Amino acid sequence: MFVKNCWYCAGWDYELVLGRNEPMPRRIAGEALVLYRKLDGSVVAMEDRCCHRQAAMHLGQREGDCIRCMYHGMKFGPDGKCVEIPGQDHISDKARIRTYPVVEKDNWIWVWMGDPSKADPELIPFAVGPGDKNWKIKTSKISVRANYRLEIANLMDLSHLTWIHRASLGGTDRWVTTPIKFTMLPRGVKSEFVLRSVPAPTFAQHVFPTGMLFDIDMNVDVTLPCNFILHFRAFTAGTATEGPSNGQLILDSWSSQAVTPVDEDNVEYYYSWGPSIATDRPGLADLLLAGVNQAFAEDKAVLEAQYRNMKERPDGNLVNIVHDAGPEKMLRLLDRFLAKEAAEAAREANPLRRAHR
Amino acid sequence: MFVKNCWYCAGWDYELVLGRNEPMPRRIAGEALVLYRKLDGSVVAMEDRCCHRQAAMHLGQREGDCIRCMYHGMKFGPDGKCVEIPGQDHISDKARIRTYPVVEKDNWIWVWMGDPSKADPELIPFAVGPGDKNWKIKTSKISVRANYRLEIANLMDLSHLTWIHRASLGGTDRWVTTPIKFTMLPRGVKSEFVLRSVPAPTFAQHVFPTGMLFDIDMNVDVTLPCNFILHFRAFTAGTATEGPSNGQLILDSWSSQAVTPVDEDNVEYYYSWGPSIATDRPGLADLLLAGVNQAFAEDKAVLEAQYRNMKERPDGNLVNIVHDAGPEKMLRLLDRFLAKEAAEAAREANPLRRAHR
Amino acid sequence: MFVKNCWYCAGWDYELVLGRNEPMPRRIAGEALVLYRKLDGSVVAMEDRCCHRQAAMHLGQREGDCIRCMYHGMKFGPDGKCVEIPGQDHISDKARIRTYPVVEKDNWIWVWMGDPSKADPELIPFAVGPGDKNWKIKTSKISVRANYRLEIANLMDLSHLTWIHRASLGGTDRWVTTPIKFTMLPRGVKSEFVLRSVPAPTFAQHVFPTGMLFDIDMNVDVTLPCNFILHFRAFTAGTATEGPSNGQLILDSWSSQAVTPVDEDNVEYYYSWGPSIATDRPGLADLLLAGVNQAFAEDKAVLEAQYRNMKERPDGNLVNIVHDAGPEKMLRLLDRFLAKEAAEAAREANPLRRAHR
Repeated sequence: MFVKNCWYCAGWDYELVLGRNEPMPRRIAGEALVLYRKLDGSVVAMEDRCCHRQAAMHLGQREGDCIRCMYHGMKFGPDGKCVEIPGQDHISDKARIRTYPVVEKDNWIWVWMGDPSKADPELIPFAVGPGDKNWKIKTSKISVRANYRLEIANLMDLSHLTWIHRASLGGTDRWVTTPIKFTMLPRGVKSEFVLRSVPAPTFAQHVFPTGMLFDIDMNVDVTLPCNFILHFRAFTAGTATEGPSNGQLILDSWSSQAVTPVDEDNVEYYYSWGPSIATDRPGLADLLLAGVNQAFAEDKAVLEAQYRNMKERPDGNLVNIVHDAGPEKMLRLLDRFLAKEAAEAAREANPLRRAHR
Repeated sequence: MFVKNCWYCAGWDYELVLGRNEPMPRRIAGEALVLYRKLDGSVVAMEDRCCHRQAAMHLGQREGDCIRCMYHGMKFGPDGKCVEIPGQDHISDKARIRTYPVVEKDNWIWVWMGDPSKADPELIPFAVGPGDKNWKIKTSKISVRANYRLEIANLMDLSHLTWIHRASLGGTDRWVTTPIKFTMLPRGVKSEFVLRSVPAPTFAQHVFPTGMLFDIDMNVDVTLPCNFILHFRAFTAGTATEGPSNGQLILDSWSSQAVTPVDEDNVEYYYSWGPSIATDRPGLADLLLAGVNQAFAEDKAVLEAQYRNMKERPDGNLVNIVHDAGPEKMLRLLDRFLAKEAAEAAREANPLRRAHR
Repeated sequence: MFVKNCWYCAGWDYELVLGRNEPMPRRIAGEALVLYRKLDGSVVAMEDRCCHRQAAMHLGQREGDCIRCMYHGMKFGPDGKCVEIPGQDHISDKARIRTYPVVEKDNWIWVWMGDPSKADPELIPFAVGPGDKNWKIKTSKISVRANYRLEIANLMDLSHLTWIHRASLGGTDRWVTTPIKFTMLPRGVKSEFVLRSVPAPTFAQHVFPTGMLFDIDMNVDVTLPCNFILHFRAFTAGTATEGPSNGQLILDSWSSQAVTPVDEDNVEYYYSWGPSIATDRPGLADLLLAGVNQAFAEDKAVLEAQYRNMKERPDGNLVNIVHDAGPEKMLRLLDRFLAKEAAEAAREANPLRRAHR
């Protein structure tokens, strides 16, 4: 089950270079897409399925801004409309392939999977990409064989840093006990964390004197379908027990993460992390990326085993705990959007309603 | 869905040598078979399934013209009748394994998958095998993960030579525009092509002076389930615009191709190509085989991706084009045979009819 | 379908070392388990599924005799009861993971998959393990992709030694003709074999003078789910045609074999063989293990092909033979136990019965 009227991240802009690797196939929310760039660099997203006999368009050939299916030679414009059928003059209006609204922003390619008339670019979440001059952002990606609801639950409850990520992003049990301020957003949830006098995360502890403590201020926006935008600031431990840290800012950073459902059983996870230019130093961005690379490999092992268990026992009795509060907020929001779209689809399919149009 | 009363190619005769690789398992039209040669060289085709507990007969052992299941030692004659049950004297009449009519012809092994009483060898399509002294035929085979209907559609519309095979068998868009003369056969369709003043196919262009043109006469018989027998003749480009080419015959050749449905999702493709002795020259047969090897790898990539798309959206809306005429002829013929056999099976299952027998 | 109230072999004791490879996942009778040792060395078997969100417990971490799920840090005692939920004080009584009775015996780990109140260690079959000082037992294991009923049928009819194992354990057709004395056991079948003046098994023939003959006395207990305990004695061929062999005892040996259903489609096969200290000589135990290793690879090929055939044609018509007598005894006993448990489960589910409790 996927929210259709939603922007889905189709990957990093640098994955879609002009030339060899395009047209590029992608599977998003259960649909097969092909992406390519027009001469002006803008991106076309099209169903990866010729309207003739379903040949894969990603095996086709670019011709200017058009793409030709290389099975029977049908040529399509970037709007999906067929412009040439070799061997015949007439081209039916039905000879078209579905295209999807695309926006490039913050070095991510975003595709709108629903009604194109609702594709408002303002709905794309704020992010800080590797192209932003004020930050030194490094990027990566990972595939996980699990339903994206498990990723939502993972990202909405950071108490797991203490456990899964004890050897990487964790290093303190304060992730378990710190109160979190949640705020509902139109398409997501904002979480605010304030940690005072905590050790560095494990992956970075060797950089600092033994026992050194830090203050951490952290804001996370999680939005549909499963984007995680993190503003992470670390200070030397200060003396203020309330309000802003009065320590020295030693790391101001953004980590932008987009988890894209491929289908019910898989996600592609596009992520980045990096410091501000002001708090950067040689090797720091690489250290941060290495830390999050390690952490997401840890998550992958846990989520894939969890998902196998859940597929085997979909009706398994569950015990709830205090840390489910965050996941529940986001999963309920997802369910509301899914229910809304299902109701709209049912209305759309209602013959009375159609008769009145 | 497979036509049962039909000859299916089980492979090249040289695949079934006496000795090491027999008994040889094959899956044809959804049924598991085992093949072996009797002492006189003739071929036995038997269900690959012992009548006792379904042990695989291809793990059994030849004993003269018999085959012994090596699980419990039951021995069967080449007619499938059990002739020995170790440890007991009585052999039930039910102790038999289904056998299938087999004919070797043109270096292919043909198996009849339906009612043995209808197995008329005259229904085996004409072909030119590697053993024919008048031709220098070279052979190969390839596996494709697609339903055989996609192969029928592929082989009944050669306009795709221009596109899929632009780097191998293609090299001109005349495959798109040349009118084809279709003639219905009892179990197939004959297609006749006449191309005048066309370039050599891409895989052979380097052999000839740049820009040299040719006349091509080509006849294809496609028959059930999916056999493709091609008579291909090339001439130096002549001056006659109507009727036979008046150029010089430089290649007279046959390509015999049998696409055997393994099951709903796979085919085995046994194929050959080669010149007449009169038009042969050193290296030519190898060049032709290399050309078709390349082409069928190209088809494999396209058909497998297309089949994945079709499995995902079996109800995908399709737009028809002019080149569907050929595929439709053969697919409708296939559907008629399938419907006829389904009706016969329904009559057979009718209790009233059985009571009257 | 599995008998629940039954001991299942979870493997050799040396597979569950303290340290690196624990907690150790195992799948038994369709259920995912995790095993680990307490500080006193005794074994805990627990469902491999956290009661919170089904995270895999085998990715958890040992803490003394407890195990902590490393997703959200819930900690469980060796009885499965949750003893810590990080971030909250209250622990619901429902926060527990199912545990299974475990007994270590004869160097095997046995797990009871049913009602713990019925887990009687006396029901564990007799075996001779590698730790027994009176025998020199060597061990191994193999995975087979087949339902365990096929293994039962295999082990209850040793006529197949003549055929499948002609190059290993076989070497004579006397396995086909020797009468077997069957005796029903409460949870299995005892088979007694007496072979007089037979050749050595093929794998050992090179050890003896050509044509040398032997007397063999063999007792086998097969018990639920599919344990095969063999007492195998070989003598130089004597002159007594009735009663005990009057030849010289040259091999007194035990082979203990436990075939554990993993799920409907797989088994794990834990096995051993070895001579008494009195009849041991250098290299003998290795020769025996090599012989049975070869034989079980032969069985694996046959059973996996047979199982593929049976899955494809579950309703395949079967012919019965004299050697089905042994398999039928054990399969009917299995079916009785399955039917009994199904009836108990139905009674348990009956609302009237529950109302009366």
